[in-house]
Amino acid sequence: MSSFQANIELAVSEHGPLCLGIDPSEKELHNWELPDSATGAKEFALRCIEAAEGRIGIVKPQVAFFERFGSSGFLALEEVLQAARDLGLLVISDAKRGDIGSTMLGYAQAWFGDDSPLRVDALTVSPYLGPSSTVEILDHARDIGGGIFLLAATSNPEATELQTSKTGKATVSATVIELAQKIGLGDCGVVIGATQDLDQFGIAHIRTTDVGIPILAPGYGAQGAKLAGLKDQFGASSSRVIPNMSRALTMAGPESVAKLIDKAKLEL
Amino acid sequence: MSSFQANIELAVSEHGPLCLGIDPSEKELHNWELPDSATGAKEFALRCIEAAEGRIGIVKPQVAFFERFGSSGFLALEEVLQAARDLGLLVISDAKRGDIGSTMLGYAQAWFGDDSPLRVDALTVSPYLGPSSTVEILDHARDIGGGIFLLAATSNPEATELQTSKTGKATVSATVIELAQKIGLGDCGVVIGATQDLDQFGIAHIRTTDVGIPILAPGYGAQGAKLAGLKDQFGASSSRVIPNMSRALTMAGPESVAKLIDKAKLEL
Repeated sequence: MSSFQANIELAVSEHGPLCLGIDPSEKELHNWELPDSATGAKEFALRCIEAAEGRIGIVKPQVAFFERFGSSGFLALEEVLQAARDLGLLVISDAKRGDIGSTMLGYAQAWFGDDSPLRVDALTVSPYLGPSSTVEILDHARDIGGGIFLLAATSNPEATELQTSKTGKATVSATVIELAQKIGLGDCGVVIGATQDLDQFGIAHIRTTDVGIPILAPGYGAQGAKLAGLKDQFGASSSRVIPNMSRALTMAGPESVAKLIDKAKLEL
Repeated sequence: MSSFQANIELAVSEHGPLCLGIDPSEKELHNWELPDSATGAKEFALRCIEAAEGRIGIVKPQVAFFERFGSSGFLALEEVLQAARDLGLLVISDAKRGDIGSTMLGYAQAWFGDDSPLRVDALTVSPYLGPSSTVEILDHARDIGGGIFLLAATSNPEATELQTSKTGKATVSATVIELAQKIGLGDCGVVIGATQDLDQFGIAHIRTTDVGIPILAPGYGAQGAKLAGLKDQFGASSSRVIPNMSRALTMAGPESVAKLIDKAKLEL
């Protein structure tokens, strides 16, 4: 079994680093003239995966947009995950889970269980309950060749309020990156929004020194960051970045996704 | 339609403040000699709810322990929520969700949607993406007479690492409590672990001045805090506290839950 880090490297070498975010929100389903239901969400996601085939190595379904339909939304997600696995796509589940240790085991069983229908390659994880509280779920991920992405500097405007707080001299963001480097051996990545000012978050050092771990970077496209600016934003760590685009690739409808993926890849 | 605050006050006046945590973990299902499956989790939760009837006004299912079975786990949870609603129990879904605004709308639709099968009275919410990023989901909760609980000082040992960080002069915990007081009108509560040193988290003021908002307090029982110590821990805010007990009430098996609830209520 190869490691998550090795799987990412393989996917990137074959298809480049671009990640397709799969966000079947009410608005997107309306754009695609699909019903606002679990069936509509599944149809949306399967069409995204078809467009990704042969073009993209990594996809990121946003769990909230399936959870909104309850159990039928999760059933749709399970079918989407199976379709992605069948095509050999790496899947990052964007769920931002985080809880105390005994509860985190439940989330580990959900997303990294050997026979779990929700099994994925990686999960986004919130370090709010203590960065060190996330070590155990990383171990479970690794057991199946998976990994996690800790939220270090998220892409939303309100992120600074908490993530620039200081623990000792370092910001929360810097502390999270340091922990990921220490525990991860490359299987623990971080989420850093492409829209954010790294200086403000106290993490500008990743621009001058290679961070050595995967960086999942949302914020491209609809949230305002440009793929052409990736190297300026991440400097010495640029080769680690998995830029995610969601709405910008899907908002023009199902027929345009493949074309917009090809166009976006040219900007990288 | 009455407000969440009014519903809590009614439940507490009828049954006292004790909340029964429903945690169908692998270990608990094993204790109860139930299969480690969605069916086992449902059976466990329904037996808990039966024991709660007439004794307890508030229950708190831990979503992770249903999520670990994927869509069939969520289907089980939906049936459990329906059973709780049928008995007039207030339900706090312990899911600790938190994301950027457009995604948070997905979680709002899941847990506070008018016709959602996962509809509950309240949801625990993580403020990691910025305390102010949680205002919108509170609005959705209120639309159906519900509320949210923001994680202010969680009950796990690693909680201090991040939640005692400083934003300006105040700790993250204090900032979260202040926000909840400002936006909530009593429908936005906070989670404060009964096991934690309030001084260390920079929130000892809630012991001398009534905080005025609901406090969901995990940590009683298996995690070490005693119900008899509630007034010492929370002082002037004691009347706001909803103490949660999970494993301590369920670990002795299904026949003992009702008896252990009665015993716990005597300690309050």
